[in-house]
Amino acid sequence: MTHVYTSASMSLDGYIAGPGDSGFDHLFQWYGNGDVEIPTTDPEMTFKLTPQSAAYFSASTRSTGALVVGRHLFDFTSGWGGEHTLGVHTFVVTHSVPSGWEHSENFTFVTDGIESAIAQAKKHAGPDRVVGVNGGTIARQCLEAGLLDEICVDLVPVLLGAGTPFFSELRKVPVTLEGPTTVIEGKAVTHLRYKVVHP
Amino acid sequence: MTHVYTSASMSLDGYIAGPGDSGFDHLFQWYGNGDVEIPTTDPEMTFKLTPQSAAYFSASTRSTGALVVGRHLFDFTSGWGGEHTLGVHTFVVTHSVPSGWEHSENFTFVTDGIESAIAQAKKHAGPDRVVGVNGGTIARQCLEAGLLDEICVDLVPVLLGAGTPFFSELRKVPVTLEGPTTVIEGKAVTHLRYKVVHP
Repeated sequence: MTHVYTSASMSLDGYIAGPGDSGFDHLFQWYGNGDVEIPTTDPEMTFKLTPQSAAYFSASTRSTGALVVGRHLFDFTSGWGGEHTLGVHTFVVTHSVPSGWEHSENFTFVTDGIESAIAQAKKHAGPDRVVGVNGGTIARQCLEAGLLDEICVDLVPVLLGAGTPFFSELRKVPVTLEGPTTVIEGKAVTHLRYKVVHP
Repeated sequence: MTHVYTSASMSLDGYIAGPGDSGFDHLFQWYGNGDVEIPTTDPEMTFKLTPQSAAYFSASTRSTGALVVGRHLFDFTSGWGGEHTLGVHTFVVTHSVPSGWEHSENFTFVTDGIESAIAQAKKHAGPDRVVGVNGGTIARQCLEAGLLDEICVDLVPVLLGAGTPFFSELRKVPVTLEGPTTVIEGKAVTHLRYKVVHP
């Protein structure tokens, strides 16, 4: 069965954004603190990673056949200017299709819930690739619906003190994980992967 | 100058205790999931660590010449039954000396604030050993007073969802750290050490 993971840059105190969507200069610093250039679909955005982070990041990106994101992230990035930065087809979970995007080749707007979005994304990715889920709210919904297999954290050495937790408002806690199955030391970032234990 | 660190077992979402002081079975599981026996001052409490965690833990304990803790932790553990589990002299920051403890050999009650407690603990530890600070509130006070040099996290693969954050109510954020300077993989725990960047 196609594997579903979520991934985020997270502060040591558990936030994927500081108060008022601040803190990204810290959280995303590792995307620019190395010498290995990784182009994106945005000609003005090239990641510059350390060799360790680049190898990790590239392997993860290559294996990702579809993304599922929430509407907040889609709006926050203005639809990544028309195509997700990673060049991967993206399923947007939303209550309504945003106007002007009805005929997008790169996005599918899913209005019948997270389970449908994951099912469609798995089909799109196929058996040999995985599905990435982005945005804390969507990741939580997947986790609580038993749809999430792996949690990947790019742990950043900063305390933000407040903001948006990676996982908040969890209804069934504690959530036991296994691992980390992967520990890779970048520069000012530690890449960690954990398996979700399905009951 | 004598080095000051704080250390805690922390869930992946940043909590050192779950709601209502729950979650310790998860957070402290790594103290019992190995074969290397580490005795404590409590004859009924022997840690059983993996070789990796035991080496890390023992080195940290050996180097610790004094501890500084908050009154909440002291009360919560009932004064560790008379002596801190690690057998290290412990300075308790408190507003008043608890009755019955006036003549303790193992504890010093400090009623004139965190700076005084750290200064006394440093003097006790001497130049060749370090001072450990325990309890999130005390650790935060040390951090904000510029008295903390290192943050050590035993990162545990569980999401607690709510509870007591390691660092909460930070007044000056973001707090930039350096590292991790140490990454050690135990079983169901990752030992991470970060340097505090003093402005």
